[in-house]
Amino acid sequence: MTRTAPAGPDPSARDDLRALLAQVESGLRTFLSQERFRWSRPDGRGAEPALAVAELVGAGGKRLRPRFLLSGYLAAGGEPGEAPVRAAMALELLHVSALIHDDVMDDADRRRTRPTVHARHAEIHRDREWFGEPRRYGESVAILAGDLAWAYADYLMAGTSPAVAREWFDLKSELIAGQAMDVTAAAELTPDAELARHIALVKSGRYTVHRPLTLGALLAGRADLAAAFQPYGEALGEAFQLRDDLIDAFGDGTVSGKPVRQDFGRGKMTLLLALAMRSDERIRALVERGEVELLRERLSGTAVHARIEARIEQLVERACASLAVAALPPEWRRELTSTASSAAYREA
Amino acid sequence: MTRTAPAGPDPSARDDLRALLAQVESGLRTFLSQERFRWSRPDGRGAEPALAVAELVGAGGKRLRPRFLLSGYLAAGGEPGEAPVRAAMALELLHVSALIHDDVMDDADRRRTRPTVHARHAEIHRDREWFGEPRRYGESVAILAGDLAWAYADYLMAGTSPAVAREWFDLKSELIAGQAMDVTAAAELTPDAELARHIALVKSGRYTVHRPLTLGALLAGRADLAAAFQPYGEALGEAFQLRDDLIDAFGDGTVSGKPVRQDFGRGKMTLLLALAMRSDERIRALVERGEVELLRERLSGTAVHARIEARIEQLVERACASLAVAALPPEWRRELTSTASSAAYREA
Repeated sequence: MTRTAPAGPDPSARDDLRALLAQVESGLRTFLSQERFRWSRPDGRGAEPALAVAELVGAGGKRLRPRFLLSGYLAAGGEPGEAPVRAAMALELLHVSALIHDDVMDDADRRRTRPTVHARHAEIHRDREWFGEPRRYGESVAILAGDLAWAYADYLMAGTSPAVAREWFDLKSELIAGQAMDVTAAAELTPDAELARHIALVKSGRYTVHRPLTLGALLAGRADLAAAFQPYGEALGEAFQLRDDLIDAFGDGTVSGKPVRQDFGRGKMTLLLALAMRSDERIRALVERGEVELLRERLSGTAVHARIEARIEQLVERACASLAVAALPPEWRRELTSTASSAAYREA
Repeated sequence: MTRTAPAGPDPSARDDLRALLAQVESGLRTFLSQERFRWSRPDGRGAEPALAVAELVGAGGKRLRPRFLLSGYLAAGGEPGEAPVRAAMALELLHVSALIHDDVMDDADRRRTRPTVHARHAEIHRDREWFGEPRRYGESVAILAGDLAWAYADYLMAGTSPAVAREWFDLKSELIAGQAMDVTAAAELTPDAELARHIALVKSGRYTVHRPLTLGALLAGRADLAAAFQPYGEALGEAFQLRDDLIDAFGDGTVSGKPVRQDFGRGKMTLLLALAMRSDERIRALVERGEVELLRERLSGTAVHARIEARIEQLVERACASLAVAALPPEWRRELTSTASSAAYREA
């Protein structure tokens, strides 16, 4: 591939970011192919989790968390190097771990356009007429694959400073606490807009944007930037989650590569569903009966739908306004402003 | 509790070990109670995984892996301190994570005399008549609790040397690869004694004894001892696993606090079952029909049963013989010899 080099000695923020993201991709490929090889002997059965992780990483994804970590690092004045690339690889592998485990909890059958790990391995069990229950077998392989991706993430994050290690731990344990709230709120099926907002903040605001940016700043030795990244990250992260909810509720699964209407199916207490259930008592019965397409029709274009869009707009504004007062180079202020729009107004 | 202090300035190996193990217990209690408190606000639903981990740790267990790590550390001349205690806490929490996830994979209903995490939470879902499937809800909480215990383990192990971080990573990824082989071999239900031995080596030999001892030696800065610990650890670990298999096959569940005959129920390819299936074609049908008590009767006291006992004896001898040539203080040679017998000839 030929590409014109940047004209001056100071390439733009976006070029630096692109170069580091390319290193993350090649780093992931190399690491995962070594791991697959490592477990292929003496018995290939041990390599299945590594294979599943490599396949899901190879199937694409937005690499949003690596992007935020590297943005935080470069915006904080960090020099391109191995440490931020390894940390960005770790974030993506942790995310893959969470996706594999979440797909079991949601019983989702597709992810990144492919069958999910548990669905695929249940199918293998069925096809080969193995002993035991196909569902349990598929979920066992998925639990192990998620555990392995998690172990990879921690290995890549080893040896960092105590401040980075603490932020990394907080990110992981908050992700788990957020998912626990999510799963239990869905089971209770109690409309609670305040709880829905809190879950979006914890599960997505901090996990997807705020803490990755902060990790980047900490890796660059700029703990002071964490305070500036917090309002941006939390607001944009919540907006990102609300968009995720809208894509699931009203979007087209052929665009996102994963099934839609999953949230309605499992009663996930999104802000959309919490507000809808409170404004219309008949919504609960549709959820309980699994009428997911009827729910889409019933809620699309309503005042509740409009309220979510308005909240996204408000959150993006708040995120961008917080950048104006942050001690950041102008090109990074522009870059993070542009990222806010593209993350909050994406289609998949 | 009053206890007579050791007479001289040089307390015995066992006293040092006991003191460090007590620090591990109090360290676990303090850490887990802080964590439960941390997630109890603003919404207690997020604290369920932390609560589940704290309960399982509090319910006891043999603390075998902390014991081996601390033995390796002290035998290598390490001074009592915070680093080995944190690493031992990490090993126990990793083990608790593996138990919670394994119990989902095996659909075990009891562990350490209590209901397993997934069984207990499925029951809560059923009792409260929540939305969705009780089984999936219970397993979701268990997946999250296991993930959280794993995150705790890594946090406690953060900041160690590159050699320790690598050993820790190898221990974790090997545990996963071993479990993957185990789950798939059980599903295939193909009697393969060689594979059964390999799984016992990877899943238990290295995970339970060899790598914990090595971690201890590395924490004490004695990488040279790793070679001496390997034959001891691998042999004793395999013996430990074979005893585990015999306790499950022939033992009394009221003693171990966990259900017995689980391995027969899921076709786990233990050395016992592999040899039994090869010596008697009718065994397969009993496994397929789930006749676990009939399998116990049929195999107890057979030549195959005796072969497993003989192999345990041979492995313990090999483990102890390897100590004779290791550069260890005599009191640690004695201590590890005694540990080998008690681990391989335990009743629960």
